[in-house]
Amino acid sequence: MGRADRPVDEGCLFCRIIAGALPCARVYEDEHVLAFLDINPMAPGHTLVVLRGHYPTLLDVPPGEAGHLFTALKIVTVALRAELRLEGFHCLQNNFSAAGQTVFHAHWHLIPRTAHDGLALWAGRPYADGDQMRRLAESLSSRIAGGLSGGTHEW
Amino acid sequence: MGRADRPVDEGCLFCRIIAGALPCARVYEDEHVLAFLDINPMAPGHTLVVLRGHYPTLLDVPPGEAGHLFTALKIVTVALRAELRLEGFHCLQNNFSAAGQTVFHAHWHLIPRTAHDGLALWAGRPYADGDQMRRLAESLSSRIAGGLSGGTHEW
Repeated sequence: MGRADRPVDEGCLFCRIIAGALPCARVYEDEHVLAFLDINPMAPGHTLVVLRGHYPTLLDVPPGEAGHLFTALKIVTVALRAELRLEGFHCLQNNFSAAGQTVFHAHWHLIPRTAHDGLALWAGRPYADGDQMRRLAESLSSRIAGGLSGGTHEW
Repeated sequence: MGRADRPVDEGCLFCRIIAGALPCARVYEDEHVLAFLDINPMAPGHTLVVLRGHYPTLLDVPPGEAGHLFTALKIVTVALRAELRLEGFHCLQNNFSAAGQTVFHAHWHLIPRTAHDGLALWAGRPYADGDQMRRLAESLSSRIAGGLSGGTHEW
């Protein structure tokens, strides 16, 4: 998406960083994407990757922008690997306040991991039984087959 | 990517599910993507979304596949929202064992959240000071400017 067509929200913190009106610790940028260090890192090198266009959540991101994002995620990850002793990484994207989103310009967290960094994924909370799981899957599948659109207006 | 060109690993758990050789609680499928409930959910409705092609980690996924993935992530999320009382969601993708990856066929976790579900993001671990952060960003940026390729062979 070209510069002229790109959605912008002048009150958005990340749009202001993208426009150069606020500083950031820049790691990478290209025509579509900007990557900069998170100022509140979960691990050293924790980087935020954002599309230049203002899309509040994942539900708003045009699928045509996804390839640009993936290209940048890979470039930044390889650089993190070269610089730091990471042994793995998460690519995490939080949507809406209940998931901890505080800036409503969709952003992908690249979080470096090592085997002994003391971080741990959340424990599983199993279904009561296999039937409960199957019924849920069937219900979701039926809803999708019945037609649901993917816009935020449906949220 | 068409069926004939798609990479497959016959020993891969998810490739076997995609091929229909193992069962799953299917939520959605199309030509490019399959989505099914995680058997060890962090929250009810926790869904895994995978590309049909066998790409071990994010570093292996062709950017041209990303749009198909995003389309599916949105469709599944809207169905989850219609079915459950979610107020937000994470889109999480773990790479390599140190990040908790156990099946080496890249997969995106859609994790429903509500404000009072007891889950919490990891606490920040701040840099010593702004200089440390700036130096790290400059070093990463220089590495990228110097040329780094994005393949797993670099990992």
